Formats: sequence, structure tokens, C-alpha cells
Amino acid sequence: MKNEKIFEEAVREIIGLVDAKKYISARNRLLDMNRVDIAEALEEIIEALGISYTVILFRMLPKDVSVEVFSYLPTDDQLAVINVITDKELSYIISEMDFDDMIDVLEELPANIVDKILSKATKEERGRINTFLNYPHDSAGSLMTPDYISLRKDMTVKGSLAHIKREGMDSETVYTCYVKDAGRKLLGIVSLRTLVVSDDGALIGDIMCGCEDMVYVNAHDDQEYVSELFKKYGFLAIPVVDGEKRLVGIITVDDILNVIEEEYNEDFEKMAGVLDAPDAEYLDIGVLKHVKSRLPWLILLMISAMLTGGIIRSFESLLTHALSLAVYLPMLMGTGGNSGSQTATLVIRGMAVGDLQLRDAAKVFWKELRVSFSIGLVLSSLNFAKILFLDRESLSVATAVCVSMLFIVMIAKSIGGMLPIVAKRVGVDPALMAAPMISSLTDIISCFTYFSLATVIFRL
Amino acid sequence: MKNEKIFEEAVREIIGLVDAKKYISARNRLLDMNRVDIAEALEEIIEALGISYTVILFRMLPKDVSVEVFSYLPTDDQLAVINVITDKELSYIISEMDFDDMIDVLEELPANIVDKILSKATKEERGRINTFLNYPHDSAGSLMTPDYISLRKDMTVKGSLAHIKREGMDSETVYTCYVKDAGRKLLGIVSLRTLVVSDDGALIGDIMCGCEDMVYVNAHDDQEYVSELFKKYGFLAIPVVDGEKRLVGIITVDDILNVIEEEYNEDFEKMAGVLDAPDAEYLDIGVLKHVKSRLPWLILLMISAMLTGGIIRSFESLLTHALSLAVYLPMLMGTGGNSGSQTATLVIRGMAVGDLQLRDAAKVFWKELRVSFSIGLVLSSLNFAKILFLDRESLSVATAVCVSMLFIVMIAKSIGGMLPIVAKRVGVDPALMAAPMISSLTDIISCFTYFSLATVIFRL
Repeated sequence: MKNEKIFEEAVREIIGLVDAKKYISARNRLLDMNRVDIAEALEEIIEALGISYTVILFRMLPKDVSVEVFSYLPTDDQLAVINVITDKELSYIISEMDFDDMIDVLEELPANIVDKILSKATKEERGRINTFLNYPHDSAGSLMTPDYISLRKDMTVKGSLAHIKREGMDSETVYTCYVKDAGRKLLGIVSLRTLVVSDDGALIGDIMCGCEDMVYVNAHDDQEYVSELFKKYGFLAIPVVDGEKRLVGIITVDDILNVIEEEYNEDFEKMAGVLDAPDAEYLDIGVLKHVKSRLPWLILLMISAMLTGGIIRSFESLLTHALSLAVYLPMLMGTGGNSGSQTATLVIRGMAVGDLQLRDAAKVFWKELRVSFSIGLVLSSLNFAKILFLDRESLSVATAVCVSMLFIVMIAKSIGGMLPIVAKRVGVDPALMAAPMISSLTDIISCFTYFSLATVIFRL
Repeated sequence: MKNEKIFEEAVREIIGLVDAKKYISARNRLLDMNRVDIAEALEEIIEALGISYTVILFRMLPKDVSVEVFSYLPTDDQLAVINVITDKELSYIISEMDFDDMIDVLEELPANIVDKILSKATKEERGRINTFLNYPHDSAGSLMTPDYISLRKDMTVKGSLAHIKREGMDSETVYTCYVKDAGRKLLGIVSLRTLVVSDDGALIGDIMCGCEDMVYVNAHDDQEYVSELFKKYGFLAIPVVDGEKRLVGIITVDDILNVIEEEYNEDFEKMAGVLDAPDAEYLDIGVLKHVKSRLPWLILLMISAMLTGGIIRSFESLLTHALSLAVYLPMLMGTGGNSGSQTATLVIRGMAVGDLQLRDAAKVFWKELRVSFSIGLVLSSLNFAKILFLDRESLSVATAVCVSMLFIVMIAKSIGGMLPIVAKRVGVDPALMAAPMISSLTDIISCFTYFSLATVIFRL
């Protein structure tokens, strides 16, 4: 098993070797590793010894290894490497990288370095790179690679396999081949598996999977939609077409794993009340950017909490008569908020993974009504006993708290269930209707319900 | 593009055809679709017309299509189909399914049906099925398939390709071949890509990727660990070994997409205070089970909220003198909770995706200190102006609220940043330290800070 401890030990050993200027031994130790791990090791060596020592080691790697390792480095380390290597070395690395990895690197680099790189490319290449750089960040176009195997309908299986051997594609992109007509329109798909198990003389046109049930995306489709298709169909790659249905590239499943992670993190952040969080690691984001992404929601929620304060103010005379009512307010508000966010989260997730549809609204409401009634009853009973026998408060206070509790839990869970569905229906992202939003809303409702009921009960 | 609307229309059309007993046309319309979509269509037909009509259609599908479509149906529909088809049909479907899909189906079926199926299998097959059924639900073993291509070191490329052609494996499992010794120990991996681009006469032993940097997992490893490896290395498949390092199966990337989804949903649920949620769709879970998974946290958080009540009670004399202090309590508690959960979520996510380590604790603390100071200052200033000029309260009240606000935001964000890290260090799942937990904690702290500061300020 790829054991973290063994890896950490190896890295410490390499750092020791580099520190003792034993570069050859350090390089050989490094080359025992998988290339993804080499990149991770270099990251740690940069952190421990600085870039100038690390780049000596980097230069000693075989050319093909160094190009691949470079593509796995995090952006800040890529920039550090770029700043110390020569222009010639940089050109080599960029030109040898997989096209989609190169685009990823170029997207992150400062404009002056990108210009320097582009100035060395051929005119045709420059045009192609610019097209790719112009796709929106979250689009299918930004994920795709133009490196794929093209076949023609009239090729034989044997000819196709020879063609693949000549092209010698990457492991990710070779497993699905695309059949195009003269106008670059996509006619069909044939997997390498089909090629390998078919007779040598069979024609591509006869064994390919045709157009009708072919799944493809447009270069401007959102990456979330693309990842849904991968999850649904279990493909290794999906073709990307332009407005005229011409094949412009393919997206492979390994790039989708990162997209899924990104999309989930966006949901987590929205649900926690962090808006437009910069797409970077927590520690890499500056203080000001952190403030900017968190402050708006906090202010909005603060204003809503002021409304709760307003309700308390309007019941001031009730409170002066029975101050002990205030003691139970945090518990009621807290329980309301927690009840509501439990339901909201379940419903938001249910909709995100496709288990719940807009048409299920009534079913959700009916289920939450029964769940919340049961939960409310249990919590009310616990409180009733506690308030009467432990706190030794009056029966009126106990009744006010417990009846409110039942109402609050039921209202909170109904709102928590309905609000995300309503949000989706009116085109707002349901993830925004999560914990912070629900808590603020239920705070207002809890406070009002409690004091209104208490007023009635105290008058009796 | 797979357009939802076109699909829905096609399904309505098919339902109309089945309703009019035009089964042949319905079947032909169905066969235009991708097999994943056929399963989805059957689901809707079952919902619209019931199982007895749908099963007629199901029986009319070509055998290989019906087997694959069956594996894509949700469990309840699979059960419905099983209940109306003959034992012979069931045996056929089960025996023709991919091994890992069959295991998935068997895991969900009632024991008596599983026994019926097993009784028809050969003794050897029965043993193999039982081994797979015994792997824990979240383990690598439960995800793997024993269907993979085995090669020997001394085979040639040409011989290997002929072997693959004879075996004719599934598309998911054919792209990585495994080289074993006589004792079934894993010696190396060779991709179909390497086979296709290598010379016919080359030996597998010379082109395979050897043992040192091979990534594999143990059958009892957690599925979350497996999905981390897929995300990190971008593989299409990972080999699974037993305690004696013998190859027992492989896991393919398409199964990992679902695991990632499952793991994220678990995190979402924990963060929303839902414990041990049943692994089923929201609407399929009964009311009692919903109550059981939500009640424990609510009771725990309610008890913690009672502590906040206790603090209010101990400051009762302060409140009788300045009741308007109570007006600002919900806002302070709410803002504290929201500030804390923002930070907690960012830190929990950062740790989950590997951006943050335990050793980063000090960096997180220092960043949150600066972020929270900035945010606290802004929120305090807004409140100061509002309380003095809009609410027309005394300078003492305004000062008490605003100084508390700064403290509360700073404390809440520090706790939100530290608690998940502490949890991880002591071996508790950080996701449990999310919104509800942080809110309860900060409620107590907010209340105490506010009233203590107010007492001091009112005495001045």
C-alpha cells in the first residue's frame, strides 16, 4: 500500500541528500517514486530548502519525467520553477506538456509570461491556445483536450490500430476513438476495446456506436452538467462539439474527479455562508479576500437578527413581568435553527443528487410534518419535566415553553423542507437556503411564536 | 445533447404506446435510447402504469440489453421485477450480469431470494459470491470486481492481444491488465495502450510497470482512501490485494464516482447534525428512521442551549436594570454562530481535500485572528451607528454591544478554526465540529461575554 509514512521518510531522506549536495543519490531515490509522488516530494523539498536547491534536482530528472512532474506541481511552485529556469527550458516544458495541462498552467500564469510563451509558438498553435484560453472557467471547453484519436468510417480495424500505434497517444485519451466526416462533424464513437476484440478486416463504420444514442456536450456547457453525465453513464471520455456540432475536443474522466470535488466544495461554502470564495487553498487566500467573501452574508444575517431584536423589544412589558421567559429563548431559537437546517441540508442534498424533484414538494412537506411532530413531542416532554422539576418554574412558563417548542420545531422543519424547493423553482441556488439562512428565519419565527403564546397563556 | 425535454417526451410517447398495447412500437422506441436511459424510462413507466405492464416490455428487450438495463434499475424496481419474472429468467439475468453489479444487487435483496439464487449456482461460484458479500459495506472489497485480464511475464504482446480478444472483457475492466506470478502475487501492470503501441514480439515482463511504484489497495481498506488514490493519481483502475498480497480483484473509476458522491453526502449530513442517516433516498426513509437519525444531536444541542439559559438567569438582576440589553442578544449570538461556522466549514473542507494539515494550526489561527478582527470592526461600527442614531439607546448599551461584537466574532472564528483541527488530532471526525456544534458553543460564549462586559460598562 502507498503508505504515507514510507513516503514522508523517503522525502526526509532526499532532503538530507540534497542538503549534503548528494544530488545523484537524491535523484535516484526520487526516480523510484510514481510521478505524482515525485511532484509532491518536490513541493516539500521546495518548502524545506527553497527553490534554488530544488531546481537543481528538477533539472537532473529525465526530460519526459520533468515535464510530467511539472504539470502536477501546484501553481505557486510552477511559478517558482518558471522564475529560475531559462526561457529555453520553459519553452521545452510547455511544448511537451499535454495540451489540457498546458492550458491549465497558462490560465494561472501572469500575462507577461504567457505572452513570452505565446511569442515562441507557431501562428497556428497560438490561435489554438487562444481559443482554449477563452472558454469560461466553468465550461466544458476549459476541461477538454484537443488530443484525441480520429478515425474514418472506411478504415479497417487493422488500419486503425496501426494508426493509433503511430500516433502513440496518452493513456487517458487513447481509449475512445472518434469517427468524423470530412466536415469534422462527429459520426460515431469506437472504443479501443471494440477495436481490440474485433476482426482485423472489419470496417470502422460497421463497428462504431452511431449518432442516435451518442452522448456529447457543447463547449459552453457548464462543467457541473458534464460531471452529471459522467456519473450517470460511467463513461471514460465524452466528446465536446461546437455550435455547428463539429468535434472540437474530448473530456476525460480523470479531469472530472477534480470538477466533482470543486462543485461539492462550492456547495459546502454556500451552505456555510461563504460567497464567491476564491478558488484557491485556504492558506493561499489573503486576509482581505477572506473578509470579502464572508462579510456580505454576515451583514445580511445580522440585519435579519435585528428583526428578532425588534420582536423582543415589542414584548418588553411581557418580559418585565416574567423575566424568566428570557432564559428559555436561546434554547428555543437554537433548537428551531438546528431542526430547520437538518431538514434543509437533507432536501438540498436530495435535490443535488437527483433523488428529489420539484414535484415531490408535497411528499416532503407531509414527511417533515410527521417527523417534526414526533421530534417536537419528545423535546417538549423533556423540557416540561426539566422546567417544572429542576428549574421549579411555574406551570405557565413550562406550558409556554413546551407548546412553543412543538410549534417551532414543526414550523422550522417545514420551512427547512420547502425553502430549498421554492428557491429551485424560482431559479435561485438551493444551497443558499442552508443553515445560516434557515437559522435567521427560524429565529424570528421562534421568538415571535414563543412570546405570542406566552402572552396568551399568562393572560389565562 | 442528451436533452431532458426530449427524453421526457419520448417517455410519455412510450407510456402512451404501452397503454394502447402497442408493445412492439414501444420496444423499438425504447431501443433507440442509451441503456442507462432505457433503465430511467422503465422506472417512469413502472411509476405510471405499474410493474405488470412494464415487465412485458422488459421481456421484449434483447437478452443482453435487458441484463444491462436491469443492473441500472433502482433497488425497489429491481425487486418489483424479480417478484414477477420466473425463476429461470432471474437465474439468467443474475448469471449474465457483471460480477460487481451482481454483488450490488444481491446485497440489497432479501435473504430468501439470495438463497434461492445461490442454490442454483455452482459450488465454486457460491464460494466466490459469499466471499464478496462478506466484505464490509465501505471497504475496497465491496467495490471490486474479480473480472480482470491476467497476463504472464513471458507472454508476448501479440499473444496478450489474442488472449484479450478471446476473453472479450467489459469496457471498464479491459484497459488495465495485471501480471501475476504462479502464486497469484501481483508482479506488475500493463495498460492496453502500452500493448497497442508496443511491438508484437515484445515480452510483457519488459513493458509492464513494475512493483516498486505500483499503487494498490487492500480489500479491507476504506473506500474513502481508495477514492483519494483515484483523485490523486488519475488512474482508470486500481488493483486490490488480500493480506498475502495476492490479487483478488480490481476497482474501476466509474464505481468511484458514486463513492465520492456518497462520502460527500455523509459529510454534508454530519455537518448538518444528522447522524447515521440511512443510506437511502430521502423519500424512501421512514418517519421513525428520520427521527432516530436527527433526534440525538437536537437533544445534545438543546442541553447545551440550556447552559446559555443558565447564563441569562445568572444575569437576571442586570437585565431588570437594563432590559434593552436583551434586544441585542439574538443578533450577537446569531453573528457569533455564523462567523464560527463559516470558518469551521472552510477548515473542515480544507482538511478533507488535503489543503490543510494538522501542522497548519498556527497559520490558521493567525489568519482567522486577522480576518475576524477586520470583520468584527466592520460589524461593530455598523451596530454602533445603528444603536445610537436609529434605536436611540444610551452610549453604555451601544458600547457594550459593539465591544462584545468584536470579541465574539474573534472568539467564534478562532474556535471555528481550531475545533476541527483539534477534533482531527484526537481522532474525531472534523465534520462533526460543524455549524450546529459551533453555534451552540459560541452561543454560550457570546451570552457570557456580552453580559459580563455590560456589567463592567454599566458600573463605570
